[in-house]
Amino acid sequence: MNILLIGATGSMGKTVEEICSESKDFKIVAGIGLNDGKDHKYPIYSNFSNVKENCDVILDFSNHNLITDILNYAIKIKKPLVISTTGYTDKQVEEIENASNYIPILFSGNMSLGINILLKVVENLSKSLLDFDIEIIEKHHKLKKDSPSGTARMLFNSVNLGRDNELIEKYGREGTNLERANNEVGIHSVRGGTIVGEHTVLFSGEDEILEVTHKAQSKKIFAFGALKACKFIIEKENNLYSMRDIFDF
Amino acid sequence: MNILLIGATGSMGKTVEEICSESKDFKIVAGIGLNDGKDHKYPIYSNFSNVKENCDVILDFSNHNLITDILNYAIKIKKPLVISTTGYTDKQVEEIENASNYIPILFSGNMSLGINILLKVVENLSKSLLDFDIEIIEKHHKLKKDSPSGTARMLFNSVNLGRDNELIEKYGREGTNLERANNEVGIHSVRGGTIVGEHTVLFSGEDEILEVTHKAQSKKIFAFGALKACKFIIEKENNLYSMRDIFDF
Amino acid sequence: MNILLIGATGSMGKTVEEICSESKDFKIVAGIGLNDGKDHKYPIYSNFSNVKENCDVILDFSNHNLITDILNYAIKIKKPLVISTTGYTDKQVEEIENASNYIPILFSGNMSLGINILLKVVENLSKSLLDFDIEIIEKHHKLKKDSPSGTARMLFNSVNLGRDNELIEKYGREGTNLERANNEVGIHSVRGGTIVGEHTVLFSGEDEILEVTHKAQSKKIFAFGALKACKFIIEKENNLYSMRDIFDF
Amino acid sequence: MNILLIGATGSMGKTVEEICSESKDFKIVAGIGLNDGKDHKYPIYSNFSNVKENCDVILDFSNHNLITDILNYAIKIKKPLVISTTGYTDKQVEEIENASNYIPILFSGNMSLGINILLKVVENLSKSLLDFDIEIIEKHHKLKKDSPSGTARMLFNSVNLGRDNELIEKYGREGTNLERANNEVGIHSVRGGTIVGEHTVLFSGEDEILEVTHKAQSKKIFAFGALKACKFIIEKENNLYSMRDIFDF
Repeated sequence: MNILLIGATGSMGKTVEEICSESKDFKIVAGIGLNDGKDHKYPIYSNFSNVKENCDVILDFSNHNLITDILNYAIKIKKPLVISTTGYTDKQVEEIENASNYIPILFSGNMSLGINILLKVVENLSKSLLDFDIEIIEKHHKLKKDSPSGTARMLFNSVNLGRDNELIEKYGREGTNLERANNEVGIHSVRGGTIVGEHTVLFSGEDEILEVTHKAQSKKIFAFGALKACKFIIEKENNLYSMRDIFDF
Repeated sequence: MNILLIGATGSMGKTVEEICSESKDFKIVAGIGLNDGKDHKYPIYSNFSNVKENCDVILDFSNHNLITDILNYAIKIKKPLVISTTGYTDKQVEEIENASNYIPILFSGNMSLGINILLKVVENLSKSLLDFDIEIIEKHHKLKKDSPSGTARMLFNSVNLGRDNELIEKYGREGTNLERANNEVGIHSVRGGTIVGEHTVLFSGEDEILEVTHKAQSKKIFAFGALKACKFIIEKENNLYSMRDIFDF
Repeated sequence: MNILLIGATGSMGKTVEEICSESKDFKIVAGIGLNDGKDHKYPIYSNFSNVKENCDVILDFSNHNLITDILNYAIKIKKPLVISTTGYTDKQVEEIENASNYIPILFSGNMSLGINILLKVVENLSKSLLDFDIEIIEKHHKLKKDSPSGTARMLFNSVNLGRDNELIEKYGREGTNLERANNEVGIHSVRGGTIVGEHTVLFSGEDEILEVTHKAQSKKIFAFGALKACKFIIEKENNLYSMRDIFDF
Repeated sequence: MNILLIGATGSMGKTVEEICSESKDFKIVAGIGLNDGKDHKYPIYSNFSNVKENCDVILDFSNHNLITDILNYAIKIKKPLVISTTGYTDKQVEEIENASNYIPILFSGNMSLGINILLKVVENLSKSLLDFDIEIIEKHHKLKKDSPSGTARMLFNSVNLGRDNELIEKYGREGTNLERANNEVGIHSVRGGTIVGEHTVLFSGEDEILEVTHKAQSKKIFAFGALKACKFIIEKENNLYSMRDIFDF
């Protein structure tokens, strides 16, 4: 499969390049990105008008600001698009939705297959284990500035979807006369060392506990997911897809 | 809901009695069992012919040898039946299936709701995470004689269902030139102290791990599940049901 | 060993009775406590003056308010004393210290052997892993009113002992521009279901993590520890001892 | 601190180089190794006779076959030596011991500080928790050929040291009428995906569990430990030291 890689010289772009160089299935035929003065096995262009290579799919790991150009180019060459970037405004999301009338687009806030499956699992568990108390524990390195992690927020939204009565987030417990509300979800952000990323959702009932954990060892998992998305999207009709569509759960 | 409890004086029978005595929803109106010389809030009969009380549902926690009598009585009084016992021969299973033409029957190898949900979750994960390696770890008290646990075997069967190519069980690894086959599932039986029961299924992929764990604190969870099954079955038509039918996953 | 059990009719008193009834080493010869209208295999007295039985050791699981009477009686009969109660004022602690000039006394805030060993382990780890970040996670049932648990506070004090620069407790993290200080210890109180008690101390360094966990299945562990303390104290000279003295670490 | 790095062009040598290049404390002044055709910030020599640079310490990450040359050179220039290689014959170990009469030598089978501390912790726990059952679980990537891991064997030896009666290793449990002997230590080798290395020792008693886990994220931890060893050894007198000597536990 021939890929046009947007954001080729960024951190995730390099990770995609590394994985493709060892793969028989995926080949980057050209990249869009800033010149990083390094050798690449494919040409890097600063804008779309210069791209001469043919691709089967466009994979975007650049920046939400470029979305209009990217959509225009993808529609022009009539090729499917995988968008792995976040931070879009409502108006940009609308642009993406409109574009999906003309080409197949897969668009997700988190490209890791494992995390997307976890999101679905915890939604199902929340629905099935109605009288279980839910708590979320996430662990990341000591330099992470935001708490909870974006993924922990997504997990909270997923367990919330599974319940009729609305769940509420609880950050930190300290005191001597505390009551845990039934619809309370404690979210605990553990920080230390160089932990890459670990998310646990705990369902505690009477005399039993069900616990689901995802552990990431590196950022490669986002690249793996994006490449799976590429494989998925090239056979699809014009429409808007998400990572949830690529697995059968 | 009025329950006729079969096996009332056994260990699980007593657990059911204890839970019902604190519940507004469930009331044991009579028990079948051996006289244990203890006080019960309901009459204990040694056989069905003496039972005068009316019940909404029959809950069996006795012994697989009694199944013919139990089925006959349930059909006679036309009441739904929950069977929480294991060890049935093929012929007995056939009897149960036949009986379910006349009354609603729920029949499961493990009555814990949590374990049944876990079984479904790991089947789904096995199917979605096709290139992940699967391992099962179970922990029980030091006196447990059988390894792996029956539940670990059920978990293996569930992950196997999720895959096209057959998985094989692997017990113990020791040596210096070992190869882990892709379809190998390591099953590890940890034994020690008074651990009630813990089951973990590990899905390990490239740079990420998904892990699901069930922890039991007591045998009460089988009674809870059985009572949930009673609630489920009283509204159902004649047919054979399992614990999987009572949750929406 | 013959035990005089103070607080015999309380919850922990009953647990001690249950364990002793199955033990060859320990025998309760008399109890002090409120009449609970139940059968006991030994006499229950409402005050010390009526006790006629001889004991080898006095085990207290009653209430800190009774300490003066208890100390007076123990000194009078010249028998060693194990104090398993908490909530003492400074003045009461002084009384205990004075009394230990006349009889051997063991006095501890938490009688579980496992917890006491954990406290020592984490102090050592804190000292040895100076550039590791420390976080504490504790899990208890949903009805627990105080957060963090008393044991989590003891764990914090232990890791603090191991460091020269003072550590500070951090309860809850939420925000987008947070900095984790090096001497910050996140303490996370997870609440749900019927979890008996679990404490984890996490030491996170560069590319490695050391993690120590204690899991309690029941309150029996406090009774086991107290009985170990009885065994320890009967051979000792007059002095004040703690649970730390009974293991060699 | 100026380091002469032996095995500079091997995998661990490169890791040491990477860490030193970002450190103010450690500087590699020269390396011994095979020419790898790459740029290094220091000269690489194929043998000791050509080394002109002065060093404070010699760090060996090469191969046990080179030990005689290394010891001779270290004694000749009278500099302390850290040996991070394994696979030595008894005769070679004797050579190392003899050499330590002339220079300070630190020699260990595993250079990770975390693992060495874990070894000491589990020895202490084994000694303090005499009636607890011990089990070891280790997890590594699917390509690892030897089971159990060398570190798991070291952990077994450590818990064995803590007990008077000899412990025995047990690999795999399968059957229906098994008895767990009290001195049996189940060792479970979990294999899957790209797991770097995780070791857990479980101490299970009556109603409580103590669990210690070490998780490695990369092989850097061996380099970190070796550099800590360099710092330790430069102030020491002639003698043979091990990683245990560098932490106070």
